[in-house]
Amino acid sequence: MTDRYIIIVAGGSGHRMGGSVPKQFLPLKGKPVLMHTLERFYRFDPDLSIILVIPYAHKESWDSLCKQAQFSIPHRIVFGGETRFHSVSNGLQVIEKDGIVGIHDGVRPLVSLKTIETCFREAEKYHSAIPATEIVETVRAVHPSGSAQLDRSALRIIQTPQVFRVSMIKDAFLKAEQESFTDDAGVFEHAGYPVHLVQGNRENIKITTPQDLKLAEILMSEPYDTDC
Amino acid sequence: MTDRYIIIVAGGSGHRMGGSVPKQFLPLKGKPVLMHTLERFYRFDPDLSIILVIPYAHKESWDSLCKQAQFSIPHRIVFGGETRFHSVSNGLQVIEKDGIVGIHDGVRPLVSLKTIETCFREAEKYHSAIPATEIVETVRAVHPSGSAQLDRSALRIIQTPQVFRVSMIKDAFLKAEQESFTDDAGVFEHAGYPVHLVQGNRENIKITTPQDLKLAEILMSEPYDTDC
Repeated sequence: MTDRYIIIVAGGSGHRMGGSVPKQFLPLKGKPVLMHTLERFYRFDPDLSIILVIPYAHKESWDSLCKQAQFSIPHRIVFGGETRFHSVSNGLQVIEKDGIVGIHDGVRPLVSLKTIETCFREAEKYHSAIPATEIVETVRAVHPSGSAQLDRSALRIIQTPQVFRVSMIKDAFLKAEQESFTDDAGVFEHAGYPVHLVQGNRENIKITTPQDLKLAEILMSEPYDTDC
Repeated sequence: MTDRYIIIVAGGSGHRMGGSVPKQFLPLKGKPVLMHTLERFYRFDPDLSIILVIPYAHKESWDSLCKQAQFSIPHRIVFGGETRFHSVSNGLQVIEKDGIVGIHDGVRPLVSLKTIETCFREAEKYHSAIPATEIVETVRAVHPSGSAQLDRSALRIIQTPQVFRVSMIKDAFLKAEQESFTDDAGVFEHAGYPVHLVQGNRENIKITTPQDLKLAEILMSEPYDTDC
């Protein structure tokens, strides 16, 4: 079977949360956000190699949080770089064999097992699988002389895990010169590889504000939770 | 001073909520969503003429909810049509003089006073004012052979109140032949009038699911609430 990896990027210092605790360490239902995220992937496949990218400065806190919670999901720690681009790059570098690798935001603990499963399955076939959801709002594009309404039926909000063939995404990261990409699919595409979209789950929000954290708590309590 | 109106459209039957109570009547902090919405505009300007568009079938429930809550904000009731387009059209028809009119979703009780104020002030000058907010996610546009990342810095999520010069928006509604517009700015633009975007507030969500209702409750409790 193909080797499968997940790089979980947890590099943010969480300034937008207004606190000193990094947002990925904030408690959600009694446990740091990041542990929920790791658990999702462990539940999907206990044999998945989990690579956790955290800033060097957070290593000690993470260790003590793990000890405190008796957190036992195996994972390899890699230290993050200056930007998200560098952090992902560092994560990719420790993968030695080819296979399939997902790259996921540490602050997206609400990814559904179905989304993870779809991404890994489709990436085997298409070399990439990027979860995306529909937009329910009206969207406009602004330009120097005004704005124009876009056809929202053609728009998709992009999520993670973004899953790729290891050799290809490594190649893409080597080719990328500028570092202004907003996601890894952008890096992949920039190198000439086609991006394959799959269905994400709406609850899979990125926790960046205190409201997001409260919303996550609500979403986790819902009966139609992230297990399906 | 210019005559100012607000048409609050509360026509949905709320199937997505999974209940039989229309979503605009669901309780939020002990009071129907729709009452919060009317209060926002009344607080902005007690002299604003409030036109509430509701389905004929909801009239009795609304009356009894108002009686129960001793709700005393003056408003004129107009019955809705088959679609949102028809409902807004019915609301516009009862305005006899020119002036400035806002059109607002009944299920957006979290519009800030600042957003309302900005919209009405700018519409006096530009004949339209449409609140919009930035998009924090990565967005792609799908096309038959794949997808392409859009420049998110140029994208805006469109909200309400959408505020217009009365004579112009009335003209636009008369000119509109098809009814597939997703918002009133689309109708206005279709008639050849320029759409002027202004800054909205992120909390100004449209309540369409049970989670939205819970999120609204959280947002209403925040210290940096919708008063600023």
